[in-house]
Amino acid sequence: MSLNTYGHVFRVTTWGESHGPALGATVDGCPPGVSLTEADLQVWLDKRKPGQSRYTTQRREADEVEILAGVFEGVTTGTPVQLMIRNTDQRSKDYSEIAGKFRPGHADITYWQKYGIRDYRGGGRSSARETAARVAAGGVARAALGALAPEIEITGYMVGMGERGIDRDRFDRAEIARNPFWVPDAAAAEAWADYLDGLRKAGSSVGATIEVSIRGCPPGLGAPVYGKLDTDLASAMMSINAVKGVEIGEGMAAGRLTGEANADEIFMGQGGPEYSSNHAGGILGGISTGQEIIVRFAVKPTSSILTPRKTITLSGEETEIVTKGRHDPCVGIRAVPVAEAMAAAVILDHLLLDRAQTGGVRGTIG
Amino acid sequence: MSLNTYGHVFRVTTWGESHGPALGATVDGCPPGVSLTEADLQVWLDKRKPGQSRYTTQRREADEVEILAGVFEGVTTGTPVQLMIRNTDQRSKDYSEIAGKFRPGHADITYWQKYGIRDYRGGGRSSARETAARVAAGGVARAALGALAPEIEITGYMVGMGERGIDRDRFDRAEIARNPFWVPDAAAAEAWADYLDGLRKAGSSVGATIEVSIRGCPPGLGAPVYGKLDTDLASAMMSINAVKGVEIGEGMAAGRLTGEANADEIFMGQGGPEYSSNHAGGILGGISTGQEIIVRFAVKPTSSILTPRKTITLSGEETEIVTKGRHDPCVGIRAVPVAEAMAAAVILDHLLLDRAQTGGVRGTIG
Amino acid sequence: MSLNTYGHVFRVTTWGESHGPALGATVDGCPPGVSLTEADLQVWLDKRKPGQSRYTTQRREADEVEILAGVFEGVTTGTPVQLMIRNTDQRSKDYSEIAGKFRPGHADITYWQKYGIRDYRGGGRSSARETAARVAAGGVARAALGALAPEIEITGYMVGMGERGIDRDRFDRAEIARNPFWVPDAAAAEAWADYLDGLRKAGSSVGATIEVSIRGCPPGLGAPVYGKLDTDLASAMMSINAVKGVEIGEGMAAGRLTGEANADEIFMGQGGPEYSSNHAGGILGGISTGQEIIVRFAVKPTSSILTPRKTITLSGEETEIVTKGRHDPCVGIRAVPVAEAMAAAVILDHLLLDRAQTGGVRGTIG
Amino acid sequence: MSLNTYGHVFRVTTWGESHGPALGATVDGCPPGVSLTEADLQVWLDKRKPGQSRYTTQRREADEVEILAGVFEGVTTGTPVQLMIRNTDQRSKDYSEIAGKFRPGHADITYWQKYGIRDYRGGGRSSARETAARVAAGGVARAALGALAPEIEITGYMVGMGERGIDRDRFDRAEIARNPFWVPDAAAAEAWADYLDGLRKAGSSVGATIEVSIRGCPPGLGAPVYGKLDTDLASAMMSINAVKGVEIGEGMAAGRLTGEANADEIFMGQGGPEYSSNHAGGILGGISTGQEIIVRFAVKPTSSILTPRKTITLSGEETEIVTKGRHDPCVGIRAVPVAEAMAAAVILDHLLLDRAQTGGVRGTIG
Repeated sequence: MSLNTYGHVFRVTTWGESHGPALGATVDGCPPGVSLTEADLQVWLDKRKPGQSRYTTQRREADEVEILAGVFEGVTTGTPVQLMIRNTDQRSKDYSEIAGKFRPGHADITYWQKYGIRDYRGGGRSSARETAARVAAGGVARAALGALAPEIEITGYMVGMGERGIDRDRFDRAEIARNPFWVPDAAAAEAWADYLDGLRKAGSSVGATIEVSIRGCPPGLGAPVYGKLDTDLASAMMSINAVKGVEIGEGMAAGRLTGEANADEIFMGQGGPEYSSNHAGGILGGISTGQEIIVRFAVKPTSSILTPRKTITLSGEETEIVTKGRHDPCVGIRAVPVAEAMAAAVILDHLLLDRAQTGGVRGTIG
Repeated sequence: MSLNTYGHVFRVTTWGESHGPALGATVDGCPPGVSLTEADLQVWLDKRKPGQSRYTTQRREADEVEILAGVFEGVTTGTPVQLMIRNTDQRSKDYSEIAGKFRPGHADITYWQKYGIRDYRGGGRSSARETAARVAAGGVARAALGALAPEIEITGYMVGMGERGIDRDRFDRAEIARNPFWVPDAAAAEAWADYLDGLRKAGSSVGATIEVSIRGCPPGLGAPVYGKLDTDLASAMMSINAVKGVEIGEGMAAGRLTGEANADEIFMGQGGPEYSSNHAGGILGGISTGQEIIVRFAVKPTSSILTPRKTITLSGEETEIVTKGRHDPCVGIRAVPVAEAMAAAVILDHLLLDRAQTGGVRGTIG
Repeated sequence: MSLNTYGHVFRVTTWGESHGPALGATVDGCPPGVSLTEADLQVWLDKRKPGQSRYTTQRREADEVEILAGVFEGVTTGTPVQLMIRNTDQRSKDYSEIAGKFRPGHADITYWQKYGIRDYRGGGRSSARETAARVAAGGVARAALGALAPEIEITGYMVGMGERGIDRDRFDRAEIARNPFWVPDAAAAEAWADYLDGLRKAGSSVGATIEVSIRGCPPGLGAPVYGKLDTDLASAMMSINAVKGVEIGEGMAAGRLTGEANADEIFMGQGGPEYSSNHAGGILGGISTGQEIIVRFAVKPTSSILTPRKTITLSGEETEIVTKGRHDPCVGIRAVPVAEAMAAAVILDHLLLDRAQTGGVRGTIG
Repeated sequence: MSLNTYGHVFRVTTWGESHGPALGATVDGCPPGVSLTEADLQVWLDKRKPGQSRYTTQRREADEVEILAGVFEGVTTGTPVQLMIRNTDQRSKDYSEIAGKFRPGHADITYWQKYGIRDYRGGGRSSARETAARVAAGGVARAALGALAPEIEITGYMVGMGERGIDRDRFDRAEIARNPFWVPDAAAAEAWADYLDGLRKAGSSVGATIEVSIRGCPPGLGAPVYGKLDTDLASAMMSINAVKGVEIGEGMAAGRLTGEANADEIFMGQGGPEYSSNHAGGILGGISTGQEIIVRFAVKPTSSILTPRKTITLSGEETEIVTKGRHDPCVGIRAVPVAEAMAAAVILDHLLLDRAQTGGVRGTIG
């Protein structure tokens, strides 16, 4: 990973600011011969697009992706796939007040301190709009995975919003697409709607917990010891705006378990090893076991709220700030498709990296 | 990050297995002119060394580090610093039983599945012995930081062992070095001693939660958006054996907060901005704020326990396994100096990377 | 270097094909605070632009560069600078004949063999149009060098066209911009004009030898042993289309010298060491000496000629081919600004890389 | 490529100085399951070893390589292969005179200027001894190629020594191993022996031209546009000590040819395309054609000669220097196995990289 690029052999470079003319991604190392159209990518972008429900920012962005390179006659050529999304609803005036003040909990102050210059309109590069490029790039990864390993299924969903969680006993994968929160629990969806309505009307915001499930991943992906599959997943998730914690399987709770409680015992199934449980979250020693991979992360509440907060100006004077822009009361909602995209890129990258080193050959059991 | 190397411009490559003749690290990109002796590194290795108390594995390793290159007349030359630690107490016989069986919760099975071969003696490359090389490399980072930014202070400590936590009101930094658990709470240290004694005698194991505090770090370190300081810290910690979750500041709890509760309000202090709180853990938008940086992670309990666990053999037969080796009842204890080493390498790397791009110039406030 | 990205900390990723809608470059790691406008880049693109004299392809391309990101109010922000150049004169019909045949000496056949697909319209990614993106990126490097090290002067020029060379005794730097060949010898320029006219009318083509001079470069740039300054310059030049050889200083002729003849003796000048000669081309042990850096490379003649050449079709039948497109009789002419751009990127990259490791401190002499 | 590491997915990091205790290489990304013993590597090191004929330095080095990691029961495990070679004959006293003076044409002065410190004993990291580590690493690449693509044959040989060349009509591959110059022309070998004897007795030195032939390489290796096969080969060769020029196929001579003369016409052979000639040196558009790959490079004469040369001291005084150490009159001889090793590493790296992206699938012709 380096600056604005991630991945080992499937490498994504993103660029663009919230209020510039466009943003995008260069996707390098994609296998050739993969069917790819703009519509294939648009479906994922539409999931992330703002203004789809009253729970997300009312900024209007078409978020239409254009493929500028790397695809010929509907098929990837093996050269860089260039993706561009134009910004259409910048409304710079909304941000005029924040040009001279630093929003608490926002990257305003650190960008200023590091670079001595910042694009104050909407956060520039630190804006969550950058994640649109990730989602587009993730769509390319999805298409390639569809061709190479169609059995892999990547699904993100919310498991917590503020103090509200889900009831794992009611977990229903089919529910995820049926509510605006991508939550796999119909009862939770209903309760959360009321809760978030209240926060939205109060000009408040709230954090969220998101989980990504990767099913059908073959054993053997991951490259010890600094390119472990969990290391790269953690890195990918932590790079998403506002993420403050990442967990694999048991996650932080693993620190509270005993060895007996944490052991995933092994049995011999039809197609290979099977496990009594999945505390490990599908990864052992940085390499996939073939079980479901579980990544979970927390997104902090957006710092843009209507309650005045104390801050300072560029010239060092103390003041207060109220952020009146069009913001998400729970940015975690739109983080779901972003996390799926990052997971897809990481899994494809490791599939290709493993193919490089081992040729896909596997040690057999039984 | 790629396979066995981490870092952008301060790059560490580690090599070596638990039961080979030696292990080590190549440290590339170290500034020239830094005073460095083997004794400077040994002090950190001694913190991690097994067999120092009854709470860690009784394997006897001198863990003496040799500097084979990159230092001339006691000073770094700017060329790669090569560090080597010989393995002296391998006792391969202890591991004979596990050659044909997979230990649940261990990398045995995934290494086998990926590579079709594995060094079953002590886990080979997946062994926690690999972390000795990290600690040695971290010592080089410490020495360079000492020369470039002596105000930076990196301290790791345990904040949880199994279900036991610490009392933050009793937090005393001076306590950390006084007990075998690196815990900043004298009362907790005492209680944990009894608890772990019980687990050790029962042949059981337990997880742990470790925190690393980085004080004195200047604002401006970190490179958005895929080389963020928190992204690289998360990646560094997640790459340590047995780590299942990583948090920055509030961490997973951030998902449960409101925007009002999470805001770190900004005031103007003598030397620059000051903050009312530190929910952010010292990092905003991937860049350090100048506040204390807080990284927390959970280590799962070691899978090597005396209670028989169900597993399978290489030939696919179901069986049970009891691991009788000399293991740590709580691997989290020895993870403390490892985490400090990783943090030191990441901070130095970002100090150099920032110097490359910005020359260390900073936007001024006030 | 990896696939479509080059550089260590100043990293350029290019994308785009000859006949797609656009091509461009993402420039990552640029220092913040550098003045940069589209006009600053356009001046370099205009040097490379086709159709400027009768000696280059008559394809009409405006080659207008747009800055889509990374610049705010005329100044770089430290985030990725995105550059886009639209293709406006593709005329796909010119290339219809070559869809099913492989042009000898061209990448047609290898792209097909590697990827199983190729964008046959004008060579796709293997087209020399890709170099427009390099020139734009090189313009960013020039702007940053102008801010950081204004004393550095990078000048490319032709020293040979086919069998014609220059007379080093007539070398006049002022001549370079006065003729369409960027040749520092007025008499050669005149003779070459006639020579190339003849080749052009005959539908033939010819190779060229180009030299890049870098003056004012401080000593100390370059990172042994695999990121040597000469290694990276060689790599940068060899990556340009049609380049078949790269030399530093004496180059291939160094193989024919004795140690006595090759020695650049050292004297003490006013500002530091001075040298009796510059066989080394300004680089010793991969690190700049402070002398003029001399890089030379050869460009093969374009394979697109009117004389029929034997080849095969996609279905393996033997046939002949005549390439009737609008081609450069001597692609070396337009390689001059491309080479300057690559040199600028490499020098800036090493300036930043050196700043990372050493902080720019230097060993003093005298 | 970065500092002391090269390669994309087969990555080699070297370390160590001429007069330290040892030097070595970490070879990361090697496929698992490759048979590998120290004897397999020693055969290549013995080719490079000094003191084998009167034409190379009389320094006595056993150059015995130890495998410290990455091999288990004679087979690679997929984890880093660590190679170490101890220095046994340093004789620091030979170098005492040069501690305070800079040898013209040597890296003494640039290392000093860059780092402010240098290991003056034998050049430290800039010494040709570093190439022993490359040869050992190249041996690992050879072993892996032997398993994956046994039809590939990599052969280096000298084609010029000072003003002496070879007669291509007498080219006999079998001669290469029969003379101390690795020259494929028996008559040249004899003439060169006398020539070099004279130079050696006079305490002089001479440059050389070396060629590496890679036969049996499949089409499709190479990754446009900055990881081209020729780009990476050029980079690999230019990184070898004393190399000043690199050529592919026609090399610098390509600049003097017309399009008609340079065209390699294509025919349909039994197993696929065949070519009338090989001006391209087996690479088109950065991708292998399947023809013999030809890389050529020039090595400058060593700067260590008995004729006094003018130079300066550390304190800036002008003086003269005579280098009395045990040096090679023609370092090009020992560069032959080094170049083979670098070529092997590059080819394997691209074989794995191609396997990552394309899975080894190829576009078919006919």
